[in-house]
Amino acid sequence: MDLNERLNHVFYPRTIAVIGASAAPGKLGHACVASLLEAGFRGRIYPVNPSANEVLGLTAYPSVGAVPGEIDLALIVLPARLTVAAAEECAARGVSATIVISSGFKEVGTEAGLGLQSKLRDIASRSGMIVIGPNTMGVVNPRVNLVASFQSTLTVARAGNVAVATQSGGMCIHTVHALTNHNMGISKAIGLGNRCALDFDDIVTYFLDDDETRVIVLYLEGLQQPRRLMKVVRDGVSRKPVVVLKGGREEASNRATLSHTGALAGRYPLYKAAFTQSGMITANNTTELVDIAKALTLQPPAAGGRVAIFCVQAGLGIVAADRCRELGLKLADFSPTTKKQLRQLIPPLNAIDNPVDVAWKSNYFNDSHAILKTVMGDDGVDTVAIAAIFWEANMPLMRAAIVARSEG
Amino acid sequence: MDLNERLNHVFYPRTIAVIGASAAPGKLGHACVASLLEAGFRGRIYPVNPSANEVLGLTAYPSVGAVPGEIDLALIVLPARLTVAAAEECAARGVSATIVISSGFKEVGTEAGLGLQSKLRDIASRSGMIVIGPNTMGVVNPRVNLVASFQSTLTVARAGNVAVATQSGGMCIHTVHALTNHNMGISKAIGLGNRCALDFDDIVTYFLDDDETRVIVLYLEGLQQPRRLMKVVRDGVSRKPVVVLKGGREEASNRATLSHTGALAGRYPLYKAAFTQSGMITANNTTELVDIAKALTLQPPAAGGRVAIFCVQAGLGIVAADRCRELGLKLADFSPTTKKQLRQLIPPLNAIDNPVDVAWKSNYFNDSHAILKTVMGDDGVDTVAIAAIFWEANMPLMRAAIVARSEG
Repeated sequence: MDLNERLNHVFYPRTIAVIGASAAPGKLGHACVASLLEAGFRGRIYPVNPSANEVLGLTAYPSVGAVPGEIDLALIVLPARLTVAAAEECAARGVSATIVISSGFKEVGTEAGLGLQSKLRDIASRSGMIVIGPNTMGVVNPRVNLVASFQSTLTVARAGNVAVATQSGGMCIHTVHALTNHNMGISKAIGLGNRCALDFDDIVTYFLDDDETRVIVLYLEGLQQPRRLMKVVRDGVSRKPVVVLKGGREEASNRATLSHTGALAGRYPLYKAAFTQSGMITANNTTELVDIAKALTLQPPAAGGRVAIFCVQAGLGIVAADRCRELGLKLADFSPTTKKQLRQLIPPLNAIDNPVDVAWKSNYFNDSHAILKTVMGDDGVDTVAIAAIFWEANMPLMRAAIVARSEG
Repeated sequence: MDLNERLNHVFYPRTIAVIGASAAPGKLGHACVASLLEAGFRGRIYPVNPSANEVLGLTAYPSVGAVPGEIDLALIVLPARLTVAAAEECAARGVSATIVISSGFKEVGTEAGLGLQSKLRDIASRSGMIVIGPNTMGVVNPRVNLVASFQSTLTVARAGNVAVATQSGGMCIHTVHALTNHNMGISKAIGLGNRCALDFDDIVTYFLDDDETRVIVLYLEGLQQPRRLMKVVRDGVSRKPVVVLKGGREEASNRATLSHTGALAGRYPLYKAAFTQSGMITANNTTELVDIAKALTLQPPAAGGRVAIFCVQAGLGIVAADRCRELGLKLADFSPTTKKQLRQLIPPLNAIDNPVDVAWKSNYFNDSHAILKTVMGDDGVDTVAIAAIFWEANMPLMRAAIVARSEG
């Protein structure tokens, strides 16, 4: 069974064990069971705790070995020192995948932490069991009501087409909430944490093949083997866009990333060059990450950087032109044919230029449509941007843009 | 009467004449009367049109001379070639202020356009009548239900403390709508258009003295006499922050600004240096303009650039730290005393560092408050930023921040 098939056990589990499940509210082991229930998970949930008979109304089992039947996915929510034995038990029991929520590994910077983490990795490579984390927030798949995490607010996530993978659990939670606030859904979300065995290249390979994913969003701080991710992206990015935000871009942040998920962030210019070379779209902050993902779920990436700007008020066209140039885009030069056609369509006082000032013609669908089609037919134009005060003020232009877009 | 007193006729008019008022929907002269009515203006409105008896249910007058009683403000909505005679008539009639909505002046780049504009300026300087524009969208003052503009959607604006002055009418409308969408109100908004007589330094002087204004927001493309604005700001910025966005920052945009409001935009680095020297806050795009205005209505400008970041999830702290450094801010170094106190307050596994990772202590008001007060008491900290996934997840920390802030 290849890795992609095995990862289906993570995102479409039929049965989940929560090792360290607790009946005490406030404990992470309680929150994980609560999240699964609140999300409405339809498979079996097995709380594992040697000193509880019941957790949140579910029968608890004293050990992984005592759980009846197969376990697709196990969450381990124990103190770090107990996680290795639990993972061993899972591997011996034939569990398909485990998520080690617990922290106290490489990120604490001690010999002990490093040792525990390498033991988890050894178990994964020896047994073939998938090990996610440690030091992670878990996984989400709204299509099967799966919130395998201590963060029960992730139940707000709706089903959509954006896949999210992050090194930081907090950034995963933030991104899922931000997408939700923008009325966007996710296909899957996963916090990779310290990535002892499952890394970005693995999960991107999975998302590239996942029919429910249209856009892949990554938040990473540092990579041990950047070339592996770059290769996977280069081979697959023509199928799906990959957007990446890197944390710890400035040297001084690196202390923080080291103590966060145990990865020294490294020099940003090198990362950025590698992202660009392999075809990723780099976001500079969390707002951009969400905006770019939103744009890409609604339309394909632009064919190139030559932009035609449409405006109804010249001021907004000027601001948009400034912004395009700052982003490294180029304002398209229209061909003589386009200019000649525009002269017939644009109000007589207006210059035939880019930005295209549609002015009061924006009040008429047919005029707006003809102007848009003329510009979109110019071989020197890769993409069209409309700078408008608000939708409702220019409905005919907006409708024309939607129609012209659908006509290709 | 000084200029500030005279400008009160613009923003608090008792009577308004609309010269070029039209009974035909779709005409700008119709839209101006409609806006005044829809906004619920409580003074008298006098439509002026030689060939109409009535406009939108209001008695129309054949000329400005025929209007009974005083006119505080006249909107001129006529073809450019007729505006000079109308302005002359207003001046002769003793009208306090006129807004020339009409276009067809310096911005069209013709001798005729330039000539008409300089005649308007001459009328203003000769008569003492305020002349706003030409080529402008008008003025708004929600406190007196004033929308003196063809853009009736400006009636959505609510009363608040942000004053908006722009060269572009479209950018004025956009900014007012964007502020409204952010639940922020405006004190006044004005489109200055081609600024034949009333310029940015005049209006900023007025806003600096206006009790209803707390933050001044400017959108400008080019200034003929930048030193005048710089001086006014330098003298007044300690009283109120001034935020500025410049359009036409790239050379290639200048063609567009020239044909827009008749001002060559000029070199951006020079403008930016002048803005900074005089104490303005420069926004790089429309989103920043609104965000900065929002922040400044809720709190004073930061005392300096040394930031302490609080986070609950390390990932968000790292992203915030990157962003601060990109913006030229500095992460504060805590004093030994602060560090010693934090050691007692921060969870034991966490580093004592900036970003301050409050972790689960964010669930406790008293802990969060003590940590915040410790950091806020450090002389090396100018400002505190909280990087959080969302408000609701960390209510005790957020409440502590509000309380700590109110304690000074």
